[in-house]
Amino acid sequence: MSRCVYLDNNATTRVPEEVVEAMQPYFSDIYFNPSSMYERAKLSASALEKARKTIAHFLGAKQSSEILFTSCATESNNTAIRGAIMANPTRKHIITSEVEHPAVLALCEQLEREGYEISRIGVNQKGELDMKAFVKALRPGETLLVSMMYANNETGVVFPIQKLSQIVKATDSRILFHTDATQAVAKVRIDLSHELENVDFLSFSGHKIHAPKGIGVLYMKKGAACRPFLYGGHQESGRRGGTENIPYIVGLAKACELAEASFDQEARLIALRDKLEQGLLKIPYVVINGQGAERLPNTVNAAFHCIEGEGILYQLDLEGICASSGSACTSGSLDPSHVLRAMHVPFTAVHGSIRFSMSRETTEEDIDHVLAVMPKIVDNLRKLSPYWDQEKQCPRGEALIIEK
Amino acid sequence: MSRCVYLDNNATTRVPEEVVEAMQPYFSDIYFNPSSMYERAKLSASALEKARKTIAHFLGAKQSSEILFTSCATESNNTAIRGAIMANPTRKHIITSEVEHPAVLALCEQLEREGYEISRIGVNQKGELDMKAFVKALRPGETLLVSMMYANNETGVVFPIQKLSQIVKATDSRILFHTDATQAVAKVRIDLSHELENVDFLSFSGHKIHAPKGIGVLYMKKGAACRPFLYGGHQESGRRGGTENIPYIVGLAKACELAEASFDQEARLIALRDKLEQGLLKIPYVVINGQGAERLPNTVNAAFHCIEGEGILYQLDLEGICASSGSACTSGSLDPSHVLRAMHVPFTAVHGSIRFSMSRETTEEDIDHVLAVMPKIVDNLRKLSPYWDQEKQCPRGEALIIEK
Repeated sequence: MSRCVYLDNNATTRVPEEVVEAMQPYFSDIYFNPSSMYERAKLSASALEKARKTIAHFLGAKQSSEILFTSCATESNNTAIRGAIMANPTRKHIITSEVEHPAVLALCEQLEREGYEISRIGVNQKGELDMKAFVKALRPGETLLVSMMYANNETGVVFPIQKLSQIVKATDSRILFHTDATQAVAKVRIDLSHELENVDFLSFSGHKIHAPKGIGVLYMKKGAACRPFLYGGHQESGRRGGTENIPYIVGLAKACELAEASFDQEARLIALRDKLEQGLLKIPYVVINGQGAERLPNTVNAAFHCIEGEGILYQLDLEGICASSGSACTSGSLDPSHVLRAMHVPFTAVHGSIRFSMSRETTEEDIDHVLAVMPKIVDNLRKLSPYWDQEKQCPRGEALIIEK
Repeated sequence: MSRCVYLDNNATTRVPEEVVEAMQPYFSDIYFNPSSMYERAKLSASALEKARKTIAHFLGAKQSSEILFTSCATESNNTAIRGAIMANPTRKHIITSEVEHPAVLALCEQLEREGYEISRIGVNQKGELDMKAFVKALRPGETLLVSMMYANNETGVVFPIQKLSQIVKATDSRILFHTDATQAVAKVRIDLSHELENVDFLSFSGHKIHAPKGIGVLYMKKGAACRPFLYGGHQESGRRGGTENIPYIVGLAKACELAEASFDQEARLIALRDKLEQGLLKIPYVVINGQGAERLPNTVNAAFHCIEGEGILYQLDLEGICASSGSACTSGSLDPSHVLRAMHVPFTAVHGSIRFSMSRETTEEDIDHVLAVMPKIVDNLRKLSPYWDQEKQCPRGEALIIEK
């Protein structure tokens, strides 16, 4: 297939040859069940434990037994939240944010139906968490769990997880702290033994960091009260039934090693991000969602006033550019992004917001190509837009009304 | 690695080159998130739907939308059972068997702790379900779900799923019927539109049928009352969050095609099974567990009286033979098999039971090798056994006491 300008790395990433190669022996050669007793099976078991150690080290976890392998970040999130609930039956209050991924939001909606009380903390126009509301929401002796994403999948805005987890534990050490770090891992350094020592559970998935789709991790701090989610065999020290996905686990460990080695690319990525943003901002009536907040080095979410994201994506696709109008996990929906709505992004800007998400494979030529085609795409679409005042080359008044 | 005589296919199977090749393009080339909107992502989405159709066809399902992809049979079982419970909050009674896989048994134990009433139907000495007890256990208006395995992972004994599901629906059409068919799929023909039309949910995993570890299927009959288990994005028509594992899903479809093409090997496998059994029965005080019951063509569970399975496995391993003392999912445990205990297999026979499980890759030479080494292995171990009367070359009296 011809190479495309792939700027949808927050949706999923390419699996590089090194990761594919690392997995190969575990399909047809060392295919044994790691629970089996013969010598050959120990090759599977030792590959599993070696990978667990690599990943524990990558995250700064104290012990490799704190790493639980799951099938995806969604399962990790469900496991942390359901498991915490099962282990703490007397508490019924959960705190999260308005801008979480559906894997947390949809589960919280379900928990509400089951009788749990959910406090959803809002964000400001930059996408930053309302800290006052957060502190106010904590209820010592009542709050069971706080689940706050590390970095937003749509905007790249980073929440202050170290500070949030410190506040939680200082308020009531029995409140559990979970973070969905799916978009943060491999983009920011995670150190669970130091900065994040107050985090009990951390979720992420392989396919956002150049491992395949279908493997996830849940870090479970030693001693954190939790119960199994998937009941079954004795695998994962009795914490998750199901035969372990050895090839992908080995692939994930390799992906973590590659990520570790590529942290030095951060400055390059930030330079590309800034170049992309500055270029896009030259187009009239463009806003960078989340600008001014602490953000991931790889994510640009740009609002093109008065045009539809779907139209932009279609035109970008014709130019060989893969981007997104928000989360791939909600892209089947016609509803505007819940993240941008929580940020009170104006109505016509929400609908014209595009996420460009880079990886270490992104090149300056990729960014140049986007910047070369984007002005014309926006111009053409605006000519067709009912919200655009063609004579004055500016948005009609109603376009800027902030939707409540 | 040197080829071994691999007779542990009920634990996991080798992934053949055809399956590995089918998956390859979806790692580094067509790696796109199937939920994304650009043209390239449609290649991922269409691979997903093509695989779903292949698997639906393989199972005789009426619609491909009845196939839900999960990460393993354990997840499929948890999804069916938890999902059925969530959708039917007024019923609290569940029927299962004493010989289920831990993925059902451990979950049922947990459900008991949550206030559900579980009826566990026993089996006779051949491993056949107690049909009278089964019929008696059904409670119209009260029973929520029946979960009965299709074929036993340890003995290969097949339960009469068609008949059981007919009885259930004739008793109360609102009782849901689930079968864990992990060991049956690809070994017996499954036809969900005809023989199994009364089955609501059927689980299996890829890695027992020559696809990789980490992919599973839950057949969900259209209209069967069920709710999601993994809450998250809109994937799988809102029935399971989490980005789809496209490579393994494509690999599973290829594995189903290969299984379809190898059903004609059934007679060959049965001949090998019978040869193995007849050869083993020539050794004194050997019993085939489940003999006389309807059984899978690939599984032989042989009890070698008065010796320890662990010792046999070790000696087999030295001869390059991979076999098992029971379920890999419980092999970390020193407890004797719950399946053989439910069959009232004598104490010393339970501890000396070995499962040989074949696949289409098994050859007659493999079986000949086992039969060549087994008599000496058994003889040597019996010489060391406190339960073996060396002078009379027969078990001491206490060895044959049936444990209650």
